[in-house]
Amino acid sequence: MASSFGHLFRISTFGESHGGGVGVVVDGCPPRLPIAVDEIQHDLDRRRPGQSKITTPRDEPDKAEILSGVFEGLTLGSPIAILVRNTDARPEAYRDFKDTYRPSHADYTYEAKYGIRNWQGGGRASARETIGRVAAGAIARKLLATTANVEVLAYVKQVYTIAAEIDSSRVTLAQVEGSIVRCPDAKAAETMIARIDEARRAGDSLGGIVECVCRNVPPGLGEPVFDRLEADLARSMMSLPASKGFEIGSGFAGSTQLTGIEHNDPFTIEGGRVRTVSNRSGGVQGGISNGEDVVFRVAFKPTATIRQAQKTIDRSGRHVTLEAKGRHDPCVLPRAVPMVEAMACLVLADHFLRQRGQCG
Amino acid sequence: MASSFGHLFRISTFGESHGGGVGVVVDGCPPRLPIAVDEIQHDLDRRRPGQSKITTPRDEPDKAEILSGVFEGLTLGSPIAILVRNTDARPEAYRDFKDTYRPSHADYTYEAKYGIRNWQGGGRASARETIGRVAAGAIARKLLATTANVEVLAYVKQVYTIAAEIDSSRVTLAQVEGSIVRCPDAKAAETMIARIDEARRAGDSLGGIVECVCRNVPPGLGEPVFDRLEADLARSMMSLPASKGFEIGSGFAGSTQLTGIEHNDPFTIEGGRVRTVSNRSGGVQGGISNGEDVVFRVAFKPTATIRQAQKTIDRSGRHVTLEAKGRHDPCVLPRAVPMVEAMACLVLADHFLRQRGQCG
Amino acid sequence: MASSFGHLFRISTFGESHGGGVGVVVDGCPPRLPIAVDEIQHDLDRRRPGQSKITTPRDEPDKAEILSGVFEGLTLGSPIAILVRNTDARPEAYRDFKDTYRPSHADYTYEAKYGIRNWQGGGRASARETIGRVAAGAIARKLLATTANVEVLAYVKQVYTIAAEIDSSRVTLAQVEGSIVRCPDAKAAETMIARIDEARRAGDSLGGIVECVCRNVPPGLGEPVFDRLEADLARSMMSLPASKGFEIGSGFAGSTQLTGIEHNDPFTIEGGRVRTVSNRSGGVQGGISNGEDVVFRVAFKPTATIRQAQKTIDRSGRHVTLEAKGRHDPCVLPRAVPMVEAMACLVLADHFLRQRGQCG
Amino acid sequence: MASSFGHLFRISTFGESHGGGVGVVVDGCPPRLPIAVDEIQHDLDRRRPGQSKITTPRDEPDKAEILSGVFEGLTLGSPIAILVRNTDARPEAYRDFKDTYRPSHADYTYEAKYGIRNWQGGGRASARETIGRVAAGAIARKLLATTANVEVLAYVKQVYTIAAEIDSSRVTLAQVEGSIVRCPDAKAAETMIARIDEARRAGDSLGGIVECVCRNVPPGLGEPVFDRLEADLARSMMSLPASKGFEIGSGFAGSTQLTGIEHNDPFTIEGGRVRTVSNRSGGVQGGISNGEDVVFRVAFKPTATIRQAQKTIDRSGRHVTLEAKGRHDPCVLPRAVPMVEAMACLVLADHFLRQRGQCG
Repeated sequence: MASSFGHLFRISTFGESHGGGVGVVVDGCPPRLPIAVDEIQHDLDRRRPGQSKITTPRDEPDKAEILSGVFEGLTLGSPIAILVRNTDARPEAYRDFKDTYRPSHADYTYEAKYGIRNWQGGGRASARETIGRVAAGAIARKLLATTANVEVLAYVKQVYTIAAEIDSSRVTLAQVEGSIVRCPDAKAAETMIARIDEARRAGDSLGGIVECVCRNVPPGLGEPVFDRLEADLARSMMSLPASKGFEIGSGFAGSTQLTGIEHNDPFTIEGGRVRTVSNRSGGVQGGISNGEDVVFRVAFKPTATIRQAQKTIDRSGRHVTLEAKGRHDPCVLPRAVPMVEAMACLVLADHFLRQRGQCG
Repeated sequence: MASSFGHLFRISTFGESHGGGVGVVVDGCPPRLPIAVDEIQHDLDRRRPGQSKITTPRDEPDKAEILSGVFEGLTLGSPIAILVRNTDARPEAYRDFKDTYRPSHADYTYEAKYGIRNWQGGGRASARETIGRVAAGAIARKLLATTANVEVLAYVKQVYTIAAEIDSSRVTLAQVEGSIVRCPDAKAAETMIARIDEARRAGDSLGGIVECVCRNVPPGLGEPVFDRLEADLARSMMSLPASKGFEIGSGFAGSTQLTGIEHNDPFTIEGGRVRTVSNRSGGVQGGISNGEDVVFRVAFKPTATIRQAQKTIDRSGRHVTLEAKGRHDPCVLPRAVPMVEAMACLVLADHFLRQRGQCG
Repeated sequence: MASSFGHLFRISTFGESHGGGVGVVVDGCPPRLPIAVDEIQHDLDRRRPGQSKITTPRDEPDKAEILSGVFEGLTLGSPIAILVRNTDARPEAYRDFKDTYRPSHADYTYEAKYGIRNWQGGGRASARETIGRVAAGAIARKLLATTANVEVLAYVKQVYTIAAEIDSSRVTLAQVEGSIVRCPDAKAAETMIARIDEARRAGDSLGGIVECVCRNVPPGLGEPVFDRLEADLARSMMSLPASKGFEIGSGFAGSTQLTGIEHNDPFTIEGGRVRTVSNRSGGVQGGISNGEDVVFRVAFKPTATIRQAQKTIDRSGRHVTLEAKGRHDPCVLPRAVPMVEAMACLVLADHFLRQRGQCG
Repeated sequence: MASSFGHLFRISTFGESHGGGVGVVVDGCPPRLPIAVDEIQHDLDRRRPGQSKITTPRDEPDKAEILSGVFEGLTLGSPIAILVRNTDARPEAYRDFKDTYRPSHADYTYEAKYGIRNWQGGGRASARETIGRVAAGAIARKLLATTANVEVLAYVKQVYTIAAEIDSSRVTLAQVEGSIVRCPDAKAAETMIARIDEARRAGDSLGGIVECVCRNVPPGLGEPVFDRLEADLARSMMSLPASKGFEIGSGFAGSTQLTGIEHNDPFTIEGGRVRTVSNRSGGVQGGISNGEDVVFRVAFKPTATIRQAQKTIDRSGRHVTLEAKGRHDPCVLPRAVPMVEAMACLVLADHFLRQRGQCG
């Protein structure tokens, strides 16, 4: 079950960074949904490497092929398989790491778990694995947009210590995509880019925070008690490579800086619709969407791959010094944005179908 | 699936705060595990209300009855059903809220989702629902202790703005239980208790952070890519009532205050065992445990129930003022500690069995 | 997962024949469904022992208690837990079998699997376990009747060599319940009863075939390729104690006595509705219901418990002679009828919700 | 979930008869299992069309490509994706059926369910879909053979009225593969082939029965109460195209021709191992394997595709006469043999891992 996600809108991803390719099978997608390979490609292009000077120079076209489940431009209701071939793989570049555990990578734990690993790159632990998620997410996004007018939009909220000022209720996709760091606060974006470039030149890396807003989510999504909407969002985000934290609405700060009187969201009526005056709940109460914007944040650690000598050990337990080569992102945040959106779309699409199933 | 959790060690909880009772069915527990009802009761007693002046005065004995799955003190491998009757329910106390949506409670969202709710107390959204989790968690804890010497220990790390100093690698259960606020930093605990009591008297409430450490977790637990150990931990914690955030290892701070060079955990060999010099990874790399302590934190918001007048609306959309009565915790943190431990035990037990299943 | 069944309408059963009780948790039931404990009790009464001279004399009132999930006569959408206490358990009657493997019972295999078993009666392998299924089936039946006018009706088609003549399209519940053997062919029923009584007196037992018809099943239920409607029906029926075979529509006979020309069901239009002229498909084509009656048959072996001396072995591997005592059904068929109906209702209810979820 | 099967050894198939291709993703396979593409191809070759004069002339090489999950000849523990391209698809041959419901095919039910279908051939309902199952089954077979010496062997037991005499405990793969009809009884095989050829020439089709024996299945596999071994086998077999019935051990005949005294399998000790003197249980008691051969039978109906005029209706409800063309098998039985084996291997491999997970 490890590589499957979702219950009704269910995906199974496959593929290592080196090998035949990566991809996904989407099972349970409603039939007769119009979907073109271009729509999938669009999100893949936002995720792919080599987009700008602050992302990895690995150059993969990442062209998607739909193998099944779509006929004459419409989904059939049967599994949709999508394949992306690996092309710019350079396994030889990794030969030096074959027997060495790179710090804060998954080399050691994969060996501890499976007793074997594909040492040609990150294998299954590579961010390349997320291609399948993003491809499936594009279908989920189309489903949500078509049936419920839901919009899912993520952006870089913070890089290292540089925090942006963003009004989650008004930010637009154009603003996000207008910046190579995917931060809609132009001033902060400029500082972020400079700081990332500095890290890149120093062979260092940076982390940060991605924020995501989901608009027009109908009230009623999420299934207490274990499949609360925020629980499934948290799981989905914490399943992304390099993520270290998740918070919804007021999050950690709200829990430690506000009292109950200050924190509660009073209900009101607006345009005949139940609303809350504030949105510290982040659009979810008791595990169920309440119709307000669903707003959450995900922390991503600084990339583990750095171009500086590091002390570590090899498979036989000897201390060695690792001189990292390879190609890497000095900061994963800009490329994490479409991944966060994809996972959010997958969670919402699944809960949308589940709600329709149980409650009609 | 909403009220089921886990794949091999799988629980299904049931029950509302008012009605016949609450409980759990544990399916997939290994056979021949010694378990006594007292071991389950022990954790339930840590969770139950009425323990001290800073918890709700609702007085429930919360006595567990094992209905099946245990024979002559040993698990049979068949489902273990545990029932706790409701006794101190006072539905009439809630009659005033029958038609009113309490702010930041689940009243509105349950109605939006199901078109019906049990208005006698929190219903399924009540923290009382966690009784089944804690009971099942006690069995998972026993399994982990017996088969792998795993120890799971949580404690209050912060209440409101009062942060404690705790060394997660050395803190003991006795230290935690020695304080009614379950904070092992005696000085901070004293301040926390005073501040909670102050909030209680003011009819206000406070939130905070629970930290949890899991020791002796064998390397290899967690299943990439979606069932990463931190992903399942995140989901489990974010499924607890009132939780607003989750982070593992260095978390949000590590992602925004450290560069990659500072953040990476160098590998070393210690006593013939692969170790990391630091533990910013929080015991998990690439979604798989690495043998270090698994350390994570959960944010809980200030209790939504407060004893002050609040503006809200009723079911017909009229603005009303809510005068909260009922009984409540001015701060859920102390009672959240056994809930966090229970969920962590459930996640680890499930992954322990899954690892044994796939990798032998 | 062993004791859970269904995806959206999902049940988890628990309980051994001896111990606190048996029961079920139903998760995912649509909200606002009217359900009274009497409706559940009605089906339990049809299943319970001691109904007539041809069923086991074990006398259990089997009174159901709804613990959760129902409020003021309506389902809440939360888990519905139902408990039936064990009362007429006489564990001492089984003490002689504590170390002996009863032939064609589950004594040996439970020990081989779990290394332990509850020797006080059949434990989890007892037909008493089906109480939870029948209770949950009553809720599923109500859901199907209310939302889609579906009717599920089973009856005894054959006992030993005595086959009944029954028109599945016209048989009524009253006809079935009018006979203690639950065979609506009065003449065959008489012979069956006499033959069962003869077996009972001889300390022997008989098997046979239950047929089930599901009417008004809407076209479109069933999910290729693995969750075909007949596949889920087969699994559900083969999970019943003592079942040895399943067939749908023309079944084994159609596969070995008809050619394709004879076997195909021509389509026609009747009352504006797509129909088939014949129904050798048994209401399912390509794994999906086609709107015709779903008709299937289940073979149940002769009860393994007999009152004659049998050769077997004990736990230490010694050959022993077993003198069966205990109480048993000389023929399980009459009591299997409500079990078959319950499982069919559970399968159909689950697929009804799944279809609504995926296809709207 | 419709196109996924299994819990720990879990497959997801995809693909229609016409389109990019068909395939499977296997998730949860144990790591370090040696597997070569040739081993997968071997079973695919047994399944593929065009093998002899009594199978469909559709000529597909059905060459498997492993896309992921295998590295240097060993499984990685990550998802194994296998793709088989469609090559001999002739969609134009199906244009006449675009708007016509072929009798006893899935044309109508797919439209009733999804509101759309790929009319170019059988789409997802085509037997071509089983390629993914057979490929995954080859991996499961290798796992079972390697870890537990399990052997799974199926053969044609009956075609139309022609029943073979086969001793399930002694039949060999060589005997089965020695006959183009895959019936190891040479005399019966000859008659079957002649009868199938006669049906082919008449544009008619035949059904029959496949029997399968699983040897060296360790005691303890199968999970009561719902995931009984025979229940999962039944589901898996009834999910195969054209299957109409399943029985295990004594099956329908044992249930209607033997009394309990005759039917029970006495236990004995043989070579220090618990055995049963007879095997009417079919190797499963109480849903759990008992160490004897697991023996079951599956009924397959006569192929729905026939070359004779048939009355049916079109999508607009008009009565039309269908002149079938296309290519088809006059009898699916010979090609069903590897499909039955594949599904049996998948069920056993899954339960093998599940048993290891729960019981160690």
